[in-house]
Amino acid sequence: MQTVKIGIIGFGTVGSGTAKIILDNNEFIAERTGVKLELKSIADPDTETDRGIKLPAGVLIDDAKKLLNDPEIDIIVELIGGTDPARDFILQAIRNGKHIVTANKALLATEGNELFEAAREKGVYLGFEASVAGGIPIIKILREGLAANRILSVYGIINGTCNYILTKMTSENVDFNSALKEAQELGYAEADPTLDIEGIDSAHKLTLISSLIYGIPLSYNMLYCEGISKISTHDIQFAKEFGYRIKLLAITKAVNDEIEMRVHPTMIPENYMIAKVDGVFNAVYVNGNAVGETLYYGKGAGDMPTGSAVVSDIIDIASKKGCAYHAPLRHYGNFHVKDIDDIDSIYYFRFTAIDKPGVLSRISGILGSYNISIASVIQKGRHAGEAVPLVVLTHKSREKDVKKAIEEIDRLDVVADKTIFIRVEGRED
Amino acid sequence: MQTVKIGIIGFGTVGSGTAKIILDNNEFIAERTGVKLELKSIADPDTETDRGIKLPAGVLIDDAKKLLNDPEIDIIVELIGGTDPARDFILQAIRNGKHIVTANKALLATEGNELFEAAREKGVYLGFEASVAGGIPIIKILREGLAANRILSVYGIINGTCNYILTKMTSENVDFNSALKEAQELGYAEADPTLDIEGIDSAHKLTLISSLIYGIPLSYNMLYCEGISKISTHDIQFAKEFGYRIKLLAITKAVNDEIEMRVHPTMIPENYMIAKVDGVFNAVYVNGNAVGETLYYGKGAGDMPTGSAVVSDIIDIASKKGCAYHAPLRHYGNFHVKDIDDIDSIYYFRFTAIDKPGVLSRISGILGSYNISIASVIQKGRHAGEAVPLVVLTHKSREKDVKKAIEEIDRLDVVADKTIFIRVEGRED
Repeated sequence: MQTVKIGIIGFGTVGSGTAKIILDNNEFIAERTGVKLELKSIADPDTETDRGIKLPAGVLIDDAKKLLNDPEIDIIVELIGGTDPARDFILQAIRNGKHIVTANKALLATEGNELFEAAREKGVYLGFEASVAGGIPIIKILREGLAANRILSVYGIINGTCNYILTKMTSENVDFNSALKEAQELGYAEADPTLDIEGIDSAHKLTLISSLIYGIPLSYNMLYCEGISKISTHDIQFAKEFGYRIKLLAITKAVNDEIEMRVHPTMIPENYMIAKVDGVFNAVYVNGNAVGETLYYGKGAGDMPTGSAVVSDIIDIASKKGCAYHAPLRHYGNFHVKDIDDIDSIYYFRFTAIDKPGVLSRISGILGSYNISIASVIQKGRHAGEAVPLVVLTHKSREKDVKKAIEEIDRLDVVADKTIFIRVEGRED
Repeated sequence: MQTVKIGIIGFGTVGSGTAKIILDNNEFIAERTGVKLELKSIADPDTETDRGIKLPAGVLIDDAKKLLNDPEIDIIVELIGGTDPARDFILQAIRNGKHIVTANKALLATEGNELFEAAREKGVYLGFEASVAGGIPIIKILREGLAANRILSVYGIINGTCNYILTKMTSENVDFNSALKEAQELGYAEADPTLDIEGIDSAHKLTLISSLIYGIPLSYNMLYCEGISKISTHDIQFAKEFGYRIKLLAITKAVNDEIEMRVHPTMIPENYMIAKVDGVFNAVYVNGNAVGETLYYGKGAGDMPTGSAVVSDIIDIASKKGCAYHAPLRHYGNFHVKDIDDIDSIYYFRFTAIDKPGVLSRISGILGSYNISIASVIQKGRHAGEAVPLVVLTHKSREKDVKKAIEEIDRLDVVADKTIFIRVEGRED
């Protein structure tokens, strides 16, 4: 039986999970797949902390360079995250002719074009299943399982932190800050939660998905990204009244030669499967022109789920069967990426309007002048002369018109606060 | 670019979908995967009916043997279903050194050991992604995507007909026969629905899944199978009151060296994702020892979804990259298949008991004498001296004890009708 020798750089959460799976499931994997995995080295500056894993003597070292230059190691698993020194480690591994597996979406989304090109030139693999949606094998599903399909759209809940916070806000009617605080206490959110709550992590992952399915270079800078920190319990409750849930969705779709790539809070009908995905779970909805609607659900983070994805990449590579390992950067696509201002969407608006006669008429007049027509209105509470929420769902409108209309509406003397708008998906117009 | 020539046997629903995908998505697939698909021949006795697909001249022929013996054809796609002559066609194709793709779960579940063995000896692939769960790439997910995992359990809703009927019964409170009739009118059920409603189709698919994940020979005859035709709206309503849904589940799990394989109506907590899978959709829940809980959802039947799976197999094979094509019959497993009588489960009982004092005591006395303890009881309606439903949820009990207890209870003079029991999954005991 063929043995493949593995070196892991980074002995943190995912590194520990990966090591544990290799050590614990080793025999079983060999029986099942015919590939024997050997954990040759793990490099981490901290060789002291007890991670609860009994490593064979000599496996844990403090010098990543030693591991990169070890001629016996076939596959380097990069699990330190961040740009430096991860990028240099990967490039060095490629130069040394080693295959790479990484969970580093931030690095790939921003500098992946160069890394994948280097890997292709050298003829080594660069596996990144663990970079998107943790344990859900979504890269394999998109690249191989649905290979017969032109992918019409992907909608992903691919950040568990945000989904936990929104679920909490929805089910318990607590505000964003309380939900975030609880997520931090439970270890679901970092001390500095910016990357998650501002949608950046989702945007990194969506960059990889779009590139993979539409054959375009990784285009993180062309993606629209908006987080969840401005979502209020008001909006969540109004969404419920309309029969919707608010989720942070990573959306990519292609119509003709135009691609949309955007991450933002989105209202979706509550009876959709993806609206039912709660807590820290991830889910990716994929609509293919043959298969129709599909959805893939599981844990998007954590040592063992992410380790599962890392090891599946290792097995794919180790089986040396080449397994359709097209780099995601096979640039066959000739697509134009739409600016967010050019998308058409249904919108939810929450105006903070002074409760007096004629207000709705003035607001709807401005909307009408920008070709935005109203599908339904909820006006809550009556407090003559005071500010009350006025909630509107539109028909399909152009984003740039929406922004102009809101700018104009927010200047009205009868409007007391900045208008909130949330894009709506999944409703027929 | 490498071209692969394909011959399809059977120009019915799935044959048409497969042909349409190859013709329509051909260019796109070539760009994306580097594999050019050429539909060389389709064999069907009926060469007259218009399937709405414009085939190039000479592609549609009436003689499958001509196609099997065509030296230019690389891959044979068998889509006629049934045992004869599908089995002989596949064996002939293997002898002729051709790779096979099939959606024929009934044939594989019952005679697959021989077919996979023949394919392995000859060194050809036998792809069967389309045999299980239609467009959901569950075979690839289990074999490759989750290759790092010891699979603890799989729970599948893998028959759309049954799921449609149960959904209808649940949401509209109509009885089994009305729901079946409507399914037939909509084309979701066959004129003779036996294979679907008696769970046989699910059992065929589960046979393939169990063999794949546990490394055992295909063991259709060792599987327990019970359909949905005896489910009444009473049971569905009582299940709701307890917070459950009734679904036809195909269940396989391994504990130590013992495997369970069973298809039967099952009560599952309504807040579980798989309980929310409605209508003709399929879903497969997979629990792996690393990845944890995952779920895969999509259309389990139909020309295009099933065609999507067929073509993904063709692309895998055609890419000649061998892609971990372990036959599902890699017999590494040393498992014992549990008899249904030896399983432990929570049970729902619906007794039809005469409403008079002491009845509950007599029934619970018998249950107790077989080590079956009661978790909760619902008694509905009061009609002194008449038969009323008495509903019980148990703690974990042994199936053979349950059967003996019910036999004894059904002989009581205070019990007016045969007791209904339904197995419950997903509740902690």
